[in-house]
Amino acid sequence: MGKCVNHPETETSYKCMKHNIYLCDQCLECRDPELYCKYRSSCPIWFLSKGTRKLDESGQTPAREATCRVDFSPDGKSAEVPAGATLLDAAGKADVYINASCNGKGACGKCKLIVEDGEVEKTDTALLSDNEKQKGYVLACQSRVKGPVSVRVPEETIERKLRVAGMGEEITRRLQGRVTEISPMLEKISMELSPPSLDDPVSDLDRLKRGLKKNGIDTNRTNIGLPVMRQLAAAMRNKNWNVTTSIMHKACSSEVVAVEPGNGAHPGLGLAIDIGTTTIVVYLVDMADGRVIAATSGHNRQASCGDDVINRIVCAEKNGVKKLSTLVLSTINTLIREAAEGAGVDFRDIGNVVVSGNTTMTHLLLEIEPRYIRREPYIPSISEFPVLKSGSIGLKANANAAVFVMPGPASYVGGDIVSGVLYTGLHRQEELTLFIDVGTNGEIVLGNKDWLICASCSAGPAFEGGGIRWGMRAEQGSIESVTIEPVSFEPRIKTIGDEPPRGICGTGMIELISEMMLTGIIDQRGKFQLDADHPRMGAVGEEPAYVLAFADQTPMDEDIVFTESDIDNLIRSKGAVYAGFTVLLNQIGVSFDMIDRVIITGGFGQFLDIDKSVTLGLLPDIDREIFHYYGNSSIGGAYMALLSADHRQSAGEICNAMTYMDFSTNTAFMDEFTSALFLPHTNLEQFPSVSAKMRETAN
Amino acid sequence: MGKCVNHPETETSYKCMKHNIYLCDQCLECRDPELYCKYRSSCPIWFLSKGTRKLDESGQTPAREATCRVDFSPDGKSAEVPAGATLLDAAGKADVYINASCNGKGACGKCKLIVEDGEVEKTDTALLSDNEKQKGYVLACQSRVKGPVSVRVPEETIERKLRVAGMGEEITRRLQGRVTEISPMLEKISMELSPPSLDDPVSDLDRLKRGLKKNGIDTNRTNIGLPVMRQLAAAMRNKNWNVTTSIMHKACSSEVVAVEPGNGAHPGLGLAIDIGTTTIVVYLVDMADGRVIAATSGHNRQASCGDDVINRIVCAEKNGVKKLSTLVLSTINTLIREAAEGAGVDFRDIGNVVVSGNTTMTHLLLEIEPRYIRREPYIPSISEFPVLKSGSIGLKANANAAVFVMPGPASYVGGDIVSGVLYTGLHRQEELTLFIDVGTNGEIVLGNKDWLICASCSAGPAFEGGGIRWGMRAEQGSIESVTIEPVSFEPRIKTIGDEPPRGICGTGMIELISEMMLTGIIDQRGKFQLDADHPRMGAVGEEPAYVLAFADQTPMDEDIVFTESDIDNLIRSKGAVYAGFTVLLNQIGVSFDMIDRVIITGGFGQFLDIDKSVTLGLLPDIDREIFHYYGNSSIGGAYMALLSADHRQSAGEICNAMTYMDFSTNTAFMDEFTSALFLPHTNLEQFPSVSAKMRETAN
Repeated sequence: MGKCVNHPETETSYKCMKHNIYLCDQCLECRDPELYCKYRSSCPIWFLSKGTRKLDESGQTPAREATCRVDFSPDGKSAEVPAGATLLDAAGKADVYINASCNGKGACGKCKLIVEDGEVEKTDTALLSDNEKQKGYVLACQSRVKGPVSVRVPEETIERKLRVAGMGEEITRRLQGRVTEISPMLEKISMELSPPSLDDPVSDLDRLKRGLKKNGIDTNRTNIGLPVMRQLAAAMRNKNWNVTTSIMHKACSSEVVAVEPGNGAHPGLGLAIDIGTTTIVVYLVDMADGRVIAATSGHNRQASCGDDVINRIVCAEKNGVKKLSTLVLSTINTLIREAAEGAGVDFRDIGNVVVSGNTTMTHLLLEIEPRYIRREPYIPSISEFPVLKSGSIGLKANANAAVFVMPGPASYVGGDIVSGVLYTGLHRQEELTLFIDVGTNGEIVLGNKDWLICASCSAGPAFEGGGIRWGMRAEQGSIESVTIEPVSFEPRIKTIGDEPPRGICGTGMIELISEMMLTGIIDQRGKFQLDADHPRMGAVGEEPAYVLAFADQTPMDEDIVFTESDIDNLIRSKGAVYAGFTVLLNQIGVSFDMIDRVIITGGFGQFLDIDKSVTLGLLPDIDREIFHYYGNSSIGGAYMALLSADHRQSAGEICNAMTYMDFSTNTAFMDEFTSALFLPHTNLEQFPSVSAKMRETAN
Repeated sequence: MGKCVNHPETETSYKCMKHNIYLCDQCLECRDPELYCKYRSSCPIWFLSKGTRKLDESGQTPAREATCRVDFSPDGKSAEVPAGATLLDAAGKADVYINASCNGKGACGKCKLIVEDGEVEKTDTALLSDNEKQKGYVLACQSRVKGPVSVRVPEETIERKLRVAGMGEEITRRLQGRVTEISPMLEKISMELSPPSLDDPVSDLDRLKRGLKKNGIDTNRTNIGLPVMRQLAAAMRNKNWNVTTSIMHKACSSEVVAVEPGNGAHPGLGLAIDIGTTTIVVYLVDMADGRVIAATSGHNRQASCGDDVINRIVCAEKNGVKKLSTLVLSTINTLIREAAEGAGVDFRDIGNVVVSGNTTMTHLLLEIEPRYIRREPYIPSISEFPVLKSGSIGLKANANAAVFVMPGPASYVGGDIVSGVLYTGLHRQEELTLFIDVGTNGEIVLGNKDWLICASCSAGPAFEGGGIRWGMRAEQGSIESVTIEPVSFEPRIKTIGDEPPRGICGTGMIELISEMMLTGIIDQRGKFQLDADHPRMGAVGEEPAYVLAFADQTPMDEDIVFTESDIDNLIRSKGAVYAGFTVLLNQIGVSFDMIDRVIITGGFGQFLDIDKSVTLGLLPDIDREIFHYYGNSSIGGAYMALLSADHRQSAGEICNAMTYMDFSTNTAFMDEFTSALFLPHTNLEQFPSVSAKMRETAN
């Protein structure tokens, strides 16, 4: 018996004779080499079972545990799982992407599958309509396997390419002018050195340093590692003293990370990576001119461990940080591969990387203990990271690539916010700016070039589609814009890519609720006022719902509806954000009219309707001119830091300048939150223009 | 078929199913896990031969190649070697230490063994006496195995503990006062940190840095690696925010290499290591007070690859640098283990290491390409080394221990000379000092606090016992002092440890030749003048020889003699050294009377008789008062650098200040060398006091 090499909490008697390690059942049955069994690719299971027998407590060989095969269409993937495992477990093992917002608790209703053949043991759920149940829909986390089964991933939940606002050229245009001088972390210097002679017998390394000095490198602060020293003599002589040196610039010193024979070095490629809790975005950049040559994005595979950072940390505590790290790395590496293949370049030419993410995301990526982030007093292990080598993290780039991780000042205000501030430039301006990032967490920064204060509130995932029956991210087919005809109450919807509607994203929800309130479909508490027999009124179980699109217009052949719980969830989210910045302002004695600029960022969608956001009560009712919507500012800041040493230094300065205000024990926050659980707000005086509009439409 | 993992030049069909690697015959038969097969300890040979069969070209299993077993006494070790292998090969495989000065060319006659059982095929050699041949003596490198054989390592060649000038306490006394303030590279700082709270929510790393700042650490220049970041959260909380941080101080930055729970850090242990081509010395030092708590020394196991650095480099080119690196590492690690066991301490507490050695030795230790050292224009790959981590080299110390390697300015003036200069302090003094290190290479430094010039000449290994029939290092039983009665020509000898004589070391040879010349036993050319029938005259073959000790007084039951070739070798060695410093002085226009101090260092023995060294013509005939013999100055400088940052910095400054003068194309050197091939010199005017003494004794 021994401890499983992947799951040290498990004792097992399966020993691999090839690797001299123990592996548990879970490893033996895995199909995902990245997730469970790093040895699997070189180690077929038969090798293990031949090598040893599994023994029971009395030392006897027990009967082999029955496993059931689960086939997934349309992926064509499959997994063997023990009887009693859930379809969600099986999907994980088969590497089939399924959104499981609530981490398998049966609460979100997102992990829908259709059983096509075979039977499963399922717990009854109100989260599926009768129509769905008839069609064989089940929730993956609530269905246990008892024999071989074939399931299909329904059209509406298949992972689609996220819409990144514009690809390559468009992004390049948008980012143009943000970097004046390119100064990468990994610099390549080509030199023609003079050969040694009896009159000039300095060592190879000193000869190299002499050349570097001529190229402006401070060699007194430049280290060199043993592997490079070992290759030095050959590398320098191989192409007749023509060499290309790669130098990694760190905060307080530099390091020669490679010396290669020959000249003609290209500055190489860079990566800007935004690791969102939900979505990961990768820009592949030409370091010579700053062009974005490819952009890719995808769902963070950690989604199978829950929607928000708290669930991810819980999962890391239970299954080890390694698991979460592997999940996010496999997502990122897939995106890097796609980007490199798309651009027709070699990923080994990637020498510079900037990673931006919230504190939990960066901890999980780097396999750093996250458990104290969620425990009072909410302490991250690391705020500012040294420049790391790609090889030590496992990113698909040159092993010597320099990796800069955006620093984050607090457990709930992370590097993504610092990156956003960097991108918007508010830390360099006289004007007082309020920066609001709406994601699963709502983060708020207030300040200017002299001071910065920040806070965070738990907004919940509603704006990104979490906890909303037909909520989804801003993908192809999501409803991003809604207007409602005041008399007929008929909606006019617009979807991303003008595809048949599959659900509704954040911007769509904001417009929908704003419109429903102004047209009187709902009241200020978010309760339906429309007659139950109105053609646009439906129900989910007992609960009334507004029908946004009828089944015959959707690819799922299901009505897309918005229920009172959905409205309630959204109100709670917007209430938290509104309470957040209100309390922050109150605490430091700043009123709305003192603010010169409001910046909104987040993953709602492409175009945020400011006026409707005010109507909802998400944003304050002030001059619309001062509002600016920036979309994903985290990736923008990462791009800037990728290209410029000045910007990397600014990131550190922003992080250090930020004062964090904790709301967790703040009673004012709870009061403000409660007041904001109205449309637009309990206190209508704070929303004069909305009041006026409401009066107008009422007349 | 595949490439052998240890010998990539060999194709083999032996595949290890356990490690998925190929291993060649040499690996399959090895007995030395360190030298040949790193997999052997976990991989018994049966596993390999079971896994696959060896195939011949037609795909058939060929007849197994015959091997012969060689047993060595008194070690009790044995090896299987193919028929036709030499006993030297067999000794290497069995890890039996044999001195093979000439690297198996059959030229030095050192690798004597006695065949006790079985037969070998031997080449006839004049290097063994008839008496020896009768007793079954063979030369290991000239004897090929043709069947099973038992051999004995003769008493006189068994490795003995070298005499390190004094152990622990004695060394400590000698070194006292050389370091005023202890400032290790790896500093341990114990701190009691304040626990985090909502009012003080800084990250774990920032909390640690805050503590370090209070302890005087410049945290802006302090890096931290990923492995430490990963342990940080647990380490800090494990003992209630009491932690001990290990910080490695490098030239231009520092690094947190470990954070451990709890307080009460001891400054730990340090190692000063002198890697000589022939001898390795290790001091184990208490970093708290600088006490040397153990000292060990042993023969550099690279000796099996030849006596001098050129042979070692040739061997590295032929067999790979790895082999040489492994040999020296295994020697050092054995010595460290002995020292740690002797002192009753844990080698994992060793946090600081300083290594001093010549340029070839440091290159081989660190597996850095040495081949250009021996090729014009004689370029070392690295002169100054960054502080390295012990784990990256493979030293038996804490894996995070900081390793400082003494810098060396040229291929033939290395870190050992810089260390010696540091130890003698000549670089800080007004007085003009001539520093002469006599080893296999003779290195010369001239200068003071304002300038340093250096050169090197190939002295040959005679003073360390190489190329001398009964020559040996300054070990127990070596003759270290000789006087000869002028009338009877009877010698009075003194051995180290007052043991029966086993050979003669450098100081003994200097005294012997000086005495033989003054008593007229030899003339100024080194030719014998004594009657052949004098009881003290013997012969080796045709060659006359002076008998220093008769067989019945020696443990080998053999006469210890000194032949004319021996005398010639020694004259050539002293001639090279004398020519070296003479040319150096001439070139820069300094005469002997301008020199304030002459320092002699080297491995001759404990006590050098200056007057007799002058009589020999090794040292100039000037005021004896200004001569100082320092023994091993390289280890002394290493000790100082181990304890003090100032001294480490000085080492770099000395290295940079040294101007190297190359003699390889210098005709003046050849002239001076030829003139010095007399006793004491062709030009007796340069040796007035010796001339006077010669006239005196002649009368």
